[in-house]
Amino acid sequence: MRIEKLREFIAEKELDGVLITHKPNLYYFTGSSPVLGGYLVVTPDEAVFLVPELEYEEAKETSKVPVEKFKTGKELYERLSSFKLRKLGIEGRTSFSTIQTLKEKANVEDFTAVDDVIKELRIIKTPEELEIIEEACKIADQAMLVALEEISEGKREREIAAKMEYVMKMNGAEKPAFDTIIASGWRSALPHGVASGKRIEKGDLVVIDEGALYRHYHSDMTRTIVVGSPNEKQKEIYEIVLEAQKKGVEEARPGITAKELDTIVRDVIAEYGYGDYFIHSTGHGVGLEIHEWPRVSQFDETVLKPGMVITVEPGIYIPKFGGVRIEDTIVITENGARRLTKTERELI
Amino acid sequence: MRIEKLREFIAEKELDGVLITHKPNLYYFTGSSPVLGGYLVVTPDEAVFLVPELEYEEAKETSKVPVEKFKTGKELYERLSSFKLRKLGIEGRTSFSTIQTLKEKANVEDFTAVDDVIKELRIIKTPEELEIIEEACKIADQAMLVALEEISEGKREREIAAKMEYVMKMNGAEKPAFDTIIASGWRSALPHGVASGKRIEKGDLVVIDEGALYRHYHSDMTRTIVVGSPNEKQKEIYEIVLEAQKKGVEEARPGITAKELDTIVRDVIAEYGYGDYFIHSTGHGVGLEIHEWPRVSQFDETVLKPGMVITVEPGIYIPKFGGVRIEDTIVITENGARRLTKTERELI
Repeated sequence: MRIEKLREFIAEKELDGVLITHKPNLYYFTGSSPVLGGYLVVTPDEAVFLVPELEYEEAKETSKVPVEKFKTGKELYERLSSFKLRKLGIEGRTSFSTIQTLKEKANVEDFTAVDDVIKELRIIKTPEELEIIEEACKIADQAMLVALEEISEGKREREIAAKMEYVMKMNGAEKPAFDTIIASGWRSALPHGVASGKRIEKGDLVVIDEGALYRHYHSDMTRTIVVGSPNEKQKEIYEIVLEAQKKGVEEARPGITAKELDTIVRDVIAEYGYGDYFIHSTGHGVGLEIHEWPRVSQFDETVLKPGMVITVEPGIYIPKFGGVRIEDTIVITENGARRLTKTERELI
Repeated sequence: MRIEKLREFIAEKELDGVLITHKPNLYYFTGSSPVLGGYLVVTPDEAVFLVPELEYEEAKETSKVPVEKFKTGKELYERLSSFKLRKLGIEGRTSFSTIQTLKEKANVEDFTAVDDVIKELRIIKTPEELEIIEEACKIADQAMLVALEEISEGKREREIAAKMEYVMKMNGAEKPAFDTIIASGWRSALPHGVASGKRIEKGDLVVIDEGALYRHYHSDMTRTIVVGSPNEKQKEIYEIVLEAQKKGVEEARPGITAKELDTIVRDVIAEYGYGDYFIHSTGHGVGLEIHEWPRVSQFDETVLKPGMVITVEPGIYIPKFGGVRIEDTIVITENGARRLTKTERELI
């Protein structure tokens, strides 16, 4: 069915074929994920997955598409050339050097981006995909519990991250979904404060942003705590972010656009006068990639539909003072949305 | 000095400027590494690092090149457009969609690959870079010790990897240099057998391939053991791989080519009749990327020089039976080469 969608695109755009090289897409279409990557060629009547020789044995076991191996770049491009792909659909991520080589060695003359059709497929998760993402979220919840137990005065941010990632892996994750963020004190004002050697101090706001990669799918969640007793200002911004995040989860439903959802969440923060301190979008799709469609931002008018998985993650970041972010991964359902990450949100 | 090399290239090719977007190169030229990436523009008389707004505070602290922020893609391309980059140098990895947008929104007409000049710089490591890589190798040695202590009958591959990666991180690594490979029994015949849920059994060959990412630089090493007593065949292929690997480290020196070194190692294995079971190249460069230049293969005639860091990692893989690989990261010195990963190699 997935390959058939590519064929409909080939017919519609009058292409000779499509070439897929981006790893998440290779996994999506073949069910196989060679470490060194591969080249999936789809034409109106053929589909072949070309992989480097040393990936062949493993790819053969896992791929739903017939696998062939190549030993050298020369062999690869000779085979590609044999498909006579004058007009070729490629991904927007295809590299300049691949494009140059396709022109020179495989006589491709004309390139068309296939991203929209792939997005249309991948943006709606199947029940099987949702089950896996739900499990990835469960592992993230377990890791968050470790963080909440372990964070204390004097420990290093990286030490906390190491324990969380160990538990993720012991619970079945392939690895963290991204570099675990433990950002304490002034670092909590950095939205991407990957765990560092900094020691956590009393009174620090600590932003914990983490997720697990499980059977190729990602999860993503954030909680913020204070070590010791929060002060008034910390409490104030925490309450605002919490209100915005809850509102976002409540209002997410089929029929509204990603942009509208971003506005709903943004307005809560703006009403309290902190609009300028919410310096990123409300969220993003999650699946085979940690950041995918839709973007819950002012620049994405995608209408939300059942089966879409997104994050809702407002934040307030005050340089030097610190920051607060609260995030869940949620799935759009028939009537609303359901949180897949379930750790308690009332932490300050 | 690094930026000056780009300017020499700009002058030589009569370009209007160069655009860098690949993260390891951004770090190399700016000293900064925003999670969401950025755009480094170098012209004959300007150098500006454009980053998304939420990376601005952190990039400002770390970048050696002046930093500017952009809020939207529109803002980014308007700024790029202001440089009047009609003839632009780009990396081979630059994506099709970036190229299309540069044409449409920034009036770029002509693209030239800048990879060779970047390769020429990055392939020779400075003393400061070598110090960091040496530390990354030390962390890999420590993790290997964990593996050698922990591997035993009944444990799962992933459990071993989890402990190794925990120790790496506690020892200062940002994360593993790549997905840790623990490939036991029949899986040891897969050169890329990332640690799985498989339980390790008595008599298994176990290939352990791991490395650490430390201050942006990678290390890479492999050892192979047998759980319990090795049989004759296991001993035989182990001895052959060990001989080939030692020979490779001994013969690596300034003046010979990467291809010649590959041949030397390959010939040892071929002489014993296992040439067809050594299904990958002898090694690869290591630095800001886990796989970089030179490639120690039949397809790379780079002359080795002091300061190059490469792996020497022959292997024999017999489908269904199992495999052996032994690998060190080494640096080419004035007279020969020095092993940076130092774990004992006589393990069977």
